[in-house]
Amino acid sequence: MQTESSQKKSVFQTEQLIELEPRYRAKLVNSLSGFKSLVLVGTRSSRGNNNLALFSSLFHISANPAMCGMLIRPKKVGENTLGNILESGVYTLNHLREEFYREAHQTSARYPQGVSEFEEVGLHPTFIDPYFAPFVEESSIRIACELLEHQELKWNQTHLIIGKIVYIEIPEKTLNPDGYVDIEAAGSITCSSLDSYHTTQRLARLEYAKPGIPPHLLE
Amino acid sequence: MQTESSQKKSVFQTEQLIELEPRYRAKLVNSLSGFKSLVLVGTRSSRGNNNLALFSSLFHISANPAMCGMLIRPKKVGENTLGNILESGVYTLNHLREEFYREAHQTSARYPQGVSEFEEVGLHPTFIDPYFAPFVEESSIRIACELLEHQELKWNQTHLIIGKIVYIEIPEKTLNPDGYVDIEAAGSITCSSLDSYHTTQRLARLEYAKPGIPPHLLE
Repeated sequence: MQTESSQKKSVFQTEQLIELEPRYRAKLVNSLSGFKSLVLVGTRSSRGNNNLALFSSLFHISANPAMCGMLIRPKKVGENTLGNILESGVYTLNHLREEFYREAHQTSARYPQGVSEFEEVGLHPTFIDPYFAPFVEESSIRIACELLEHQELKWNQTHLIIGKIVYIEIPEKTLNPDGYVDIEAAGSITCSSLDSYHTTQRLARLEYAKPGIPPHLLE
Repeated sequence: MQTESSQKKSVFQTEQLIELEPRYRAKLVNSLSGFKSLVLVGTRSSRGNNNLALFSSLFHISANPAMCGMLIRPKKVGENTLGNILESGVYTLNHLREEFYREAHQTSARYPQGVSEFEEVGLHPTFIDPYFAPFVEESSIRIACELLEHQELKWNQTHLIIGKIVYIEIPEKTLNPDGYVDIEAAGSITCSSLDSYHTTQRLARLEYAKPGIPPHLLE
C-alpha cells in the first residue's frame, strides 16, 4: 500500500491557526471535516413566511428512536431557521440534487427577514399533512423532524438542535430490500468546505465486519 | 426544472418506523443523513495500546477557535475510543482514501479489548511529537484534537465529544491559495448509510451568495 509520507505537507498548529486571515481559516478548517451531509432545511414562521436554508452539519444520532442532530449558528434568533424551529417545533430536511444545487447555495445569501428564500431562488414549497413546515418540491428524499432538544454550546454562539424523525419520503426504486437507501441513485449530492459541491460514485457496500474475516463486498 | 412528484414514493411515519425489523431500520435511518464525513479516529490507552475506529459522525463546529464534534455510542467506557479520549484528552482524525477503505471498514469488527485494530487490519500507526495518540501512516489528511467537552445525550447512550483542532497536516498540493483544501484531490472518500463507500466528482465551487445575484462558479 502506498504511504503518503513522501508527499510534501502543509502543517498548521494552534499558533498558526490563530494568525490566519479569517476567511482563509474558515475555508481551511471547514475542509477538515470531510464530505458532508447537505440538506435544505424548511421552516415556517407563525406569520406564515416559508424559510429555506442550506445546512451541512446534519448528523445521524440513532435509528430507534429515529433521531438526527444539526448545528445552527444564527446571527440572532428571529424569523429564521432557528427561530422558526423553536417556535413551531417542526422542520423538514430535503436532500440536494445536482439539478438545483446552485439554487440551494443561493439560499445562503442574507435576505431580509420576511423574504422567502423559496421565491428568491426559484425552489417550490410543498406541504404534506399534518406537517406545518414546507418541504422542497424538487427534492427526491424528504424528511420531517420534530424538535426534541435545543442547547446552546458554551464555546461560541452555536446551537445544537436534536430532532425526532417523524416522516420519511424516498423514491421507491432507491429503497433496497435490506433497508439501505441508494441516495446516490436518488441524485443526492455532497459538499466540502464552504462552497464546493460534489456528486458521488459508489465503490462498494461492505458486509458487517467480523474479527479475523476480510471485508467482503455486499454488492 | 424537473420535479420529483411523479415518481413512486416509499413513505414511513413514526408508527411504521417503530415496527420495522431493527437491522432494516438501522440501514434505512442511517441513509437519511446523506453522505457523511468519514474518518479513522486514533487513540492510545494508558497501557500503551493503540486503538483505531471508523466514524461517520464528524461535524464542523467553528473555525475560530477551530473545533469539531463527533458522536460515539460505546458498548461501555473501557480501553476503546471513548475511554481513551476521556483518559488522555487527545485523539487523531485521519481521512480515508480508496486504497484502504476495506481495512478501515474492518476496524469496526468487535475485537477484544487490548487488541490493536492497526495490527489486525494492516494499517500503520505513526506518532507526531508531542501528540500522545497515533495517526494513520496511510492517511493524507491528518488532524489532532484535544478534548474540550464531553456530554452524554439524554435520549440514548450516545456521547457527544467536542474537540479543539490543534494540529493539521495536508498535502501541500491540495491547499488552494484561499485556504480551501481540495480533499477530493487528496483522495478523501465519503460514505452513506452503514456500509456504502463512495468517491466524489466535483461539480463546482460557488461564490459567496449575495441577494439578487445568481450564484457564480468560483473555478
